[in-house]
Amino acid sequence: MPLLDDSTVDRELAALPGWQRDGVRITRLYTFASFADAIAFVNRVAALAEAADHHPDIHVAYDKVRLTLWSHDSGGLTERDFRLARRIDP
Amino acid sequence: MPLLDDSTVDRELAALPGWQRDGVRITRLYTFASFADAIAFVNRVAALAEAADHHPDIHVAYDKVRLTLWSHDSGGLTERDFRLARRIDP
Repeated sequence: MPLLDDSTVDRELAALPGWQRDGVRITRLYTFASFADAIAFVNRVAALAEAADHHPDIHVAYDKVRLTLWSHDSGGLTERDFRLARRIDP
Repeated sequence: MPLLDDSTVDRELAALPGWQRDGVRITRLYTFASFADAIAFVNRVAALAEAADHHPDIHVAYDKVRLTLWSHDSGGLTERDFRLARRIDP
């Protein structure tokens, strides 16, 4: 899967509110009403990740979840990252 | 809940293989056979955390989960942290 150039990354990000670029990765912080809601979100993301065979880093801090996506095997951002982000935030 | 002194922290850690001190926190890295196993572990930890009303930071990176525990309201390590760690690693 080819790496995306900067202008493509910028255009993809513009269509994904809340997501930001962090070097070779994209990341979004979600805040929920409770820890239980945060864990429910983690399970939804996990199911989407398994279906896509593409797995974000997931960091849970009580009612907050940070997702970080990049394509390890390609060494940066590819269409797979944005495809999964769009499934997470439909 | 009172903060534990260093010698108590050292004694508690000696009884918890895999856990290490990281400043005012304790942390352990777990490695699983798959992402699905890692997420199953997260759900088990989440249930224990809710039962204890004490919530570790949880970081999932594919087949690895890092837990980090400290007592936010006390500003460091208390007996609650070690009690939850023991429930996670029975």
